[in-house]
Amino acid sequence: MISIAVDVMGGDSGPQEILPAVLTVFQEQSMLRAFLVGDELQIKPLIANWPSGVSERLVIVHTDEVVAMNEVPSVALRTKKRASMRLAIELVRDGKAAACVSAGNTGALMAISRFILKTCAGIDRPAIVSSLPTRQGQTYMLDLGANVDCGSEQLYQFALMGSTLVRALHGIAAPRVALLNIGEETIKGNDRVKQANELMRADSDLNYVGYIEGDAILSGDVDVVVCDGFVGNVALKSIEGVARFILTSFKAALQRNRWTRLLGWLCKPLYQAFLQRMDPGNYNGASLIGLRGVVVKSHGRADRVEFAQALRLAAHEANLNIPRLLDRVL
Amino acid sequence: MISIAVDVMGGDSGPQEILPAVLTVFQEQSMLRAFLVGDELQIKPLIANWPSGVSERLVIVHTDEVVAMNEVPSVALRTKKRASMRLAIELVRDGKAAACVSAGNTGALMAISRFILKTCAGIDRPAIVSSLPTRQGQTYMLDLGANVDCGSEQLYQFALMGSTLVRALHGIAAPRVALLNIGEETIKGNDRVKQANELMRADSDLNYVGYIEGDAILSGDVDVVVCDGFVGNVALKSIEGVARFILTSFKAALQRNRWTRLLGWLCKPLYQAFLQRMDPGNYNGASLIGLRGVVVKSHGRADRVEFAQALRLAAHEANLNIPRLLDRVL
Repeated sequence: MISIAVDVMGGDSGPQEILPAVLTVFQEQSMLRAFLVGDELQIKPLIANWPSGVSERLVIVHTDEVVAMNEVPSVALRTKKRASMRLAIELVRDGKAAACVSAGNTGALMAISRFILKTCAGIDRPAIVSSLPTRQGQTYMLDLGANVDCGSEQLYQFALMGSTLVRALHGIAAPRVALLNIGEETIKGNDRVKQANELMRADSDLNYVGYIEGDAILSGDVDVVVCDGFVGNVALKSIEGVARFILTSFKAALQRNRWTRLLGWLCKPLYQAFLQRMDPGNYNGASLIGLRGVVVKSHGRADRVEFAQALRLAAHEANLNIPRLLDRVL
Repeated sequence: MISIAVDVMGGDSGPQEILPAVLTVFQEQSMLRAFLVGDELQIKPLIANWPSGVSERLVIVHTDEVVAMNEVPSVALRTKKRASMRLAIELVRDGKAAACVSAGNTGALMAISRFILKTCAGIDRPAIVSSLPTRQGQTYMLDLGANVDCGSEQLYQFALMGSTLVRALHGIAAPRVALLNIGEETIKGNDRVKQANELMRADSDLNYVGYIEGDAILSGDVDVVVCDGFVGNVALKSIEGVARFILTSFKAALQRNRWTRLLGWLCKPLYQAFLQRMDPGNYNGASLIGLRGVVVKSHGRADRVEFAQALRLAAHEANLNIPRLLDRVL
């Protein structure tokens, strides 16, 4: 049995989207249990008609305190001692849950997780890691925004963590790890990146393939892309932005008149599979890696289908016990 | 009359693509003159049959020295005193040409330009700026890779330069300037970005609209996006990478069989205009801004159509005398 602590109040849509996601995933995976952390008055009516096979695996942990999406993380850490997010993380610390999932304030989730769970031995600071679709499969990128200024040693730790995660999640014996850099410019990279390159190259346990540039992130040539959190966050959001820009422009062109709508309908089988592959919702769920416990962040605007992806990821990581694997490697 | 110094030997394709581009642009713009800097033996046969109305506006400056695409910039600066790139830049310094265009080694072009032309008063280091297509028009982004570590004062200078450039090129009275940052994370931005934010906010001559995130670069909500060269280079290449990824995936889907090829043919009018708008070739030409002279960098792999865009940009900037405008503002 695997227990997951779900922050039912986090994110923009709250229990109305999060609870149906729990139902979906619980019907798929019979070994799951969950703590539903949040406002009992809101939760109870929404799960009232669930099949007993699911509801008997649920425990409601009531609280009416919530971390707001725009709350300053340090303030949330100091003042929101009974917030749903915090109680969910404490269930992981206390060994009652093997993972926690929240769609709430990312900064607060990171700050509270670090404070409550602490980092693995050998890890200075946790990172945010997520997968992206590539030509051949997927690639994992870290850090995506937890660390805005990273030294070379931290970048090296990201490489170790990313490699361990991908090896476990996908059974790849030696995941190809690359360091994000820039080319063609006056000085190739900055000192931190150059030093990280040396550290990674010197580690024979790491399948380090060297530098890649931004246009190769989605190439499928590497399994792990390492960068600092500022660069990673900008790159990820740039990718999401341009993907959305192209897809909405294309859809708008197909809506122009009756003829184009007919064409769009005829073309649907062609682009449907591709759109599905590119849909960020299918990649929902970023891991806060390097903590002594599995913490998965869902996108704040995730709907039930997308939140279900974050839940599946949490269950998978809990099952593999990623934090223990990290403790072995580092 | 405007004279442009063209590095005919730079880039991957050299005179075979660069010279036809010169012909095209010279037939459009009768006030242009050019110095064709490069190997006379290669140039002469390629321009032998040009109309006299064009060839009488050309002067060949012979040299057989070339900066290689992979040459270390500092070595090129020290040793390649007769390289086509360097002679072209010297023509700008000597007032014989009003602009220089090269498809060669970016780092060498920046290093030699800085050494030969010097920077405008008040500018610590030049930046690389280029335009990107947006929903409504275009946006200019800088720095794109010349400066891997930027202080807040430098970011502020980028804002002033970008604003001046867009005002002149597009006649926008108060270009909207934004600072690229990350959201939703533990600490919003790093200290350099926060301080640059203060500097920009304090300058009432700047139409500073605040922070934007990576997914808003192409939104069309801003005219100038400011960031350090590492982040800008990664973001630009990430955008190019995902655009190429989506477009090639879509084209591959249309090539699957006879029926899909027919659909592709029927859909062509719909996506043609869009592809054209997204085609990086139409945005070829990055400006090395902040120098006492106009220097435009073409993509190294540019074909004749794309190189012509870089030439037009150089002519436009020379005509507006962007370096003098910068001297006034800074």
